[in-house]
This record gives sequence, C-alpha cells and structure tokens, in this order.
Amino acid sequence: MHPEMIDTLVIPNTTKIIFLIMDGLGGLPGPEGMTELETAQTPNLDALAKKGVCGLLDPVGYGITPGSGPAHFALFGYDPVKNNIGRGILEGAGIDFPMTEKDLLIRINFATVNSDGIIVDRRAGRIDNETNRRLCKKLQDNIPSDGNVEVIFQAEKEHRAVLVLRGDGLAEEIGETDPQHTGMAPLPPRALVPEAKYTEALLSNVISRAGEVLSEEPKANMMLLRGYAKYRKYPSLYDRYRLNALAIASYPMYRGIARLLGMNIAGHTDTVAEEIALLRKHYHDYDFFFVHVKATDSRGEDGNFDGKVTVLEELDAMLPQITDLKPDVLVVTGDHSTPAVLASHSWHPVPVLLSAPTCRPDMVVYFAERDCIRGGLGRMPMMYLMGQALAHAKRLEKFGA
Amino acid sequence: MHPEMIDTLVIPNTTKIIFLIMDGLGGLPGPEGMTELETAQTPNLDALAKKGVCGLLDPVGYGITPGSGPAHFALFGYDPVKNNIGRGILEGAGIDFPMTEKDLLIRINFATVNSDGIIVDRRAGRIDNETNRRLCKKLQDNIPSDGNVEVIFQAEKEHRAVLVLRGDGLAEEIGETDPQHTGMAPLPPRALVPEAKYTEALLSNVISRAGEVLSEEPKANMMLLRGYAKYRKYPSLYDRYRLNALAIASYPMYRGIARLLGMNIAGHTDTVAEEIALLRKHYHDYDFFFVHVKATDSRGEDGNFDGKVTVLEELDAMLPQITDLKPDVLVVTGDHSTPAVLASHSWHPVPVLLSAPTCRPDMVVYFAERDCIRGGLGRMPMMYLMGQALAHAKRLEKFGA
Repeated sequence: MHPEMIDTLVIPNTTKIIFLIMDGLGGLPGPEGMTELETAQTPNLDALAKKGVCGLLDPVGYGITPGSGPAHFALFGYDPVKNNIGRGILEGAGIDFPMTEKDLLIRINFATVNSDGIIVDRRAGRIDNETNRRLCKKLQDNIPSDGNVEVIFQAEKEHRAVLVLRGDGLAEEIGETDPQHTGMAPLPPRALVPEAKYTEALLSNVISRAGEVLSEEPKANMMLLRGYAKYRKYPSLYDRYRLNALAIASYPMYRGIARLLGMNIAGHTDTVAEEIALLRKHYHDYDFFFVHVKATDSRGEDGNFDGKVTVLEELDAMLPQITDLKPDVLVVTGDHSTPAVLASHSWHPVPVLLSAPTCRPDMVVYFAERDCIRGGLGRMPMMYLMGQALAHAKRLEKFGA
Repeated sequence: MHPEMIDTLVIPNTTKIIFLIMDGLGGLPGPEGMTELETAQTPNLDALAKKGVCGLLDPVGYGITPGSGPAHFALFGYDPVKNNIGRGILEGAGIDFPMTEKDLLIRINFATVNSDGIIVDRRAGRIDNETNRRLCKKLQDNIPSDGNVEVIFQAEKEHRAVLVLRGDGLAEEIGETDPQHTGMAPLPPRALVPEAKYTEALLSNVISRAGEVLSEEPKANMMLLRGYAKYRKYPSLYDRYRLNALAIASYPMYRGIARLLGMNIAGHTDTVAEEIALLRKHYHDYDFFFVHVKATDSRGEDGNFDGKVTVLEELDAMLPQITDLKPDVLVVTGDHSTPAVLASHSWHPVPVLLSAPTCRPDMVVYFAERDCIRGGLGRMPMMYLMGQALAHAKRLEKFGA
C-alpha cells in the first residue's frame, strides 16, 4: 500500500490531532546502560503509553539515517524517498524565503581563496551574520538579472546563504562547485545533463561576477555552490487530508517545511512553554497541530546525555497542558533518533506513542525504546503514521465494499 | 516481495489446509478493559495458540478499514488494492449471479420520487423481498435487450437489486445516478470518459424505460444506480496454488467472492454446526477449505459485546470437530476487526493463529489481540498469509539455487 492511498479515503470531520514531535527523540544507552528516555523520569508519558498504543517508527528505512527534511516528510505521510527534497529548498524554507515554481534554489557557502584561487577555508572563518547580510546585499546590488532570469541573494547564518535563480528553463542537474576539501580550486558548475547547459552558463557568469564583487573581502572572497534544487509544489495537508494545520516551531527550518506542506505558521517562540501556550491559544482555530521541540535533538547533537534527559523530564512535566485539551488523537514521537553517545542523527527507529479512545491496549507501560518494541503499533515505516492518526480521528472511510 | 511471487514456487502435494475465518474477529476493550477475544473462555483456541504461531494481520494497510471484498482477497493472497473489486461485482457475487466477461454489473437501489421527480426516499421505504422480486420481473418483462446488449434485472434484498448489461464495448466509467440525498432529482448516468458514451446512452434509455414501468408503484417508482463494475476474471486458487478449494459459507456474498476465485461452493447452511458438518463430509474431496463464520461480525456490527463473546465461546467448543480432522495446516483468523464498541469494521489488525507441525514456537499461550502482538508471525500484511500456509503445507519449493 502506498501512503497516498489514504488520501482517497479521507472524509471531513471536526476531530483534533496533535503531533508532539521531539526532534531526535530516540537514543542509545549511556554509562548506566539505559537510554535517555529510559533514564528520564516521565510519569505523564508513561501514563499515556499505558493507555495508548506504542511502537517504533523507521523514518526512511532499515539502516538509513535521515536528515530532518525526509524525516518530517515521513511524519506527515509523504514518502520521504519519492519526495526527497533538495537542500536548496530546505535552506529556502529555513529562511522563510517566498519560493515560486520558477525558482532554482542553491546553497551558498562563503569561502576564502588565496591569491592562486585555491580554497584555504571552506567556511570563510565562519563570518558573522551581519557580514553575511552585508555581502548578500553587495552581491545583490552588483549582479543584475541575466536576460529573463532573476538572480536573488539571501543571507542565512554565519557563512551560509541562498542563491535563487528565478526564470524559465532552469535545471537542477549541475555539479557542485564545492570540492569538499581545502587546497583545491572551486569546481566549475558543470551541467550533468544536456538540458542543464543553459543553467550552467548562467551560473558560470554569476560566479565570475561574484568573484569580482567579493575580491576585496578579507575572508569571504569566494562563494561555493551546492544543493541545487528546483522548487516543487507539494500537495498540502489540506489537499490530502482536509486538515487545517498549524505548525508551532521555534526553528526556521521546521517552519519552512511546514509551510511547504501548506500549514499555517504560528508566531515566533523561543521556548517550549511558549509553544504550548500558542497551542492552547489557537486550539479552536485548527484541527491539526505540529508542535516541534528542538532541544532534544540539540542536546543529542552536543553529546550531552544528561542534558537530553533533563529536556525530556521538562517536557514530561508540561505534558498535562497538552492532554488537558483532550485532543481526539495525540501522537508523541520524534523525527529521527539522535543518541547523545553518537552526537549525531542515527538510523535507529524512533519510539512512538499514539493516544486515542480507540486504541487497542498493548503491554507497554513505559514510554521508552525497549518497551516500544513490544507495542501494538509494531515497527512501522514512519510514512504510515499519519494514516493511523487519521483513522483514530475518524477521518477515513472504509476501503472497498 | 509481491504476493504473486508465491505462485512461481508452487509444487503439487496432497496436504490439506483449512482457513477458519471468523468475520470481524478483532475487537477493542469493553467495559472491563478486555477485548471480546480476551473476555471469551476459549481453551481450545488457546491450546492451538500455545502449540502454533500467532501474529497480527493488516488486511489492506495501516489505518485502513477494509470492506469485506478487499479483506477476503487479501486472505487468499490477492493484493487487495491492485485487485480492488467493484461493488457491482460483489453484489452480483452475493446473489450467486453467473457473471460473464461481457457483463457490466450495477447496484440498483429502488427509491421513491414525488410528482416533480424529486427523491423523497432513497430506499423506497425498504420494500420487502417479495415486492423487490416482483419489480425486477416486471422490469425484465418490459425492458427488452438493446441492440446487442442484453439487459438483466436481479433482485437482491429489500430495496436492493442488480442490473446487468451484457455485451461488447461497455464501460464502467459512469457517474452514479444516486445523488446520496433526498430533495434532489436523480442524476443522469453521465459518461466520465469518452469511451463510456455508448454505455451512457444505453443506461439513459434503460432508466427512462424503468421510470415508465415503475410509474404506478406506490413506493418503488424509480431506480438509482451506482457501483458500476465490469466483470473481471481472476486467476483461481487452482491456477495460482494448485489448490482444489471448497468454500463453506452461509452468506451469499462470501460464497460469491469464493466463486470469483474459482472455489467450489458447498451447499447452503444456516449454522456453524452445519458448516462444520459439511467440512467433515467433504474433507476427502478437496485440499483447501474456506470456512466462513458470519456471526462474530454480526454481533460486532450490532454493538453486542457479550453476544460476540458468546459466539467465540461457541466456536471454541466446536473447534475439536475441526482439529480432529488433523489438517496439515489450520489457520484461524478474521477478515478484519469489528469491535463491538465501534459497531463497525475497523482498521485494527486482526489476530491470526497458524497451527502446523512445522510451526516454530513463540511465547503466545492465549489467542487474543494483545498476546498476538508478541507472536512469531509478527505483524504482517494479510496478503502474505496464504504463502505462509502453503509453506507449512509443503507446497512451495525453494527459491533460487
């Protein structure tokens, strides 16, 4: 069964679904032999697990460590392989750039080259955000549109920016100019298919002009390009599931992904407490809520086992503010695992908890990795989670007579 | 792996397989916190579960509530999505109508329209079966064949009947004439693709003639059409698995589905005791037996938790009459879940028990939903069950050297 089969069965309803996504939730044992989730005291999550149904989700597939893009696509029922999203689009989404269907989005890394044109720093000494913005403005002011193709520079953070070509006939099949090593010259933006020749010519010109514009800069005197991605329009959660969705996320990239999928975006927040306050404020205005918690992943990426445990315990303490709303379906899971002992995303499946009145009991009484193995949801591809949530929300009709 | 891969590995044997299908078997907790199957005292099923291997089956996919048609296709190893069967064919199958490959089958609902042609009752006051038969005969006698297309009316029950067009060049891509609401006129049978124009013209004529024939009827003075389905020939269980199959089912629709898949159909029965008697009588004449029990689903659909428990206990008491036969493989499962608390089909996976001398033991000692989670069959798509049964029946050869 393909996840899009769900779409053909959707019926309208007024039920409410909350997805509480703790980024990088899954872990591995620390020094005491228990994972972060096993170590954390989480009485509220455990109570939910006892009444609900648990399992383990594979974001992309066995052994595959997902990036945040594919993992979130899977969470919302979009096949993460078929809908694999180019880095450029993710970057554009991450800075809230208003993309159009004529856009080719490209990740820029500002870099330092020496007088022979050899790269000596691929991150230009991690210039500050203000320098980044100044450079993008300088490039924008000095590099005009090329024929019918508009050229747009957008600062991101530190040494990262986004280049957008907007026009007809653009192609994303272009070789990266970042050789991934210092001591080499940047590569030319080579067309990988004949249809990309026009784009190659445009980019060669932009790069050459950029080199002139940046030539006097002390650090960021070159730009390297990668992650070419033509903008794609995705069917929205409303198109697919008739869900009016609100995304509540502190980090731009998650807001960006939510926007790509047609969700409305709640106001800016800095803390989980503020996110939950927004959830409660807007609870009557939407029927699907994506609440994204970044700190679990950040502590995991930092290799901070105890820090991740603390974040989990803090979240657990706030959980009653969500369950108080009595959503028809509450899903608690992550987009992927980020074990503190690995200090990175990993391929391990992600614990999931689904709470609804129509759950069939399983024997799980603790919300943690090794308990979820025996959960009633079993081990399932993450892209089918949304169908489960819609079923429990009574938003799917019967298939076949 | 696609389920049809099994077909390439089939070897003949004389082993016997029994599928005991308790319709709507899976449940949800009632007031005491236990499901119907957990509540029922089923010592014989539990003994089988202890020796055999258990699991949970997904009829169509995560979150999908299956109709009886797709669910039974999956049980017999037919991909339920790829082989999705039109309502018209299921209706035809349900009345044992001898379908041919030239047939377009359509569900009729007799309805009441007022003098302005507006529908006032979409079910014609649920006319009785005898009136239904009289109306179908009247229509048959007064509506002749149209050119080379034969027009056949077949009564079903209450307000339901089947219209068959038999001929060449017919298409199923026709809009339903039932507007699904009273207070509206019936819709015209509109061709949805250019190839269906001929069928549209034939149906317009039949509907107009039917309106004249029925005009004097007090209730059923109009017919509404939906569920258009061209007959499809499916490969039989013999074609695919070299199984001589007998279906033993009290309800017409299940006999009909079995006939579509080339099974022989046992004589009519009213009780499970009669079904088991037929199984024992014909045991030496076939090597696959589909024994269908409807009462589990009926009690579930009625929302009768205790009634479903009682049916399960009665079945359990009769089980020794089946195990006495010492089949090489005995499978006990359902086609889908029908929890009494929902009083309808549901998307929850279905407990399954496979008993054979070659079962690898698991830890399940009770045949019930939350125990099956830990069963050796795991959670698997229902369409792969038949392959498991054939393997245990020593009817599949090795794949590859």
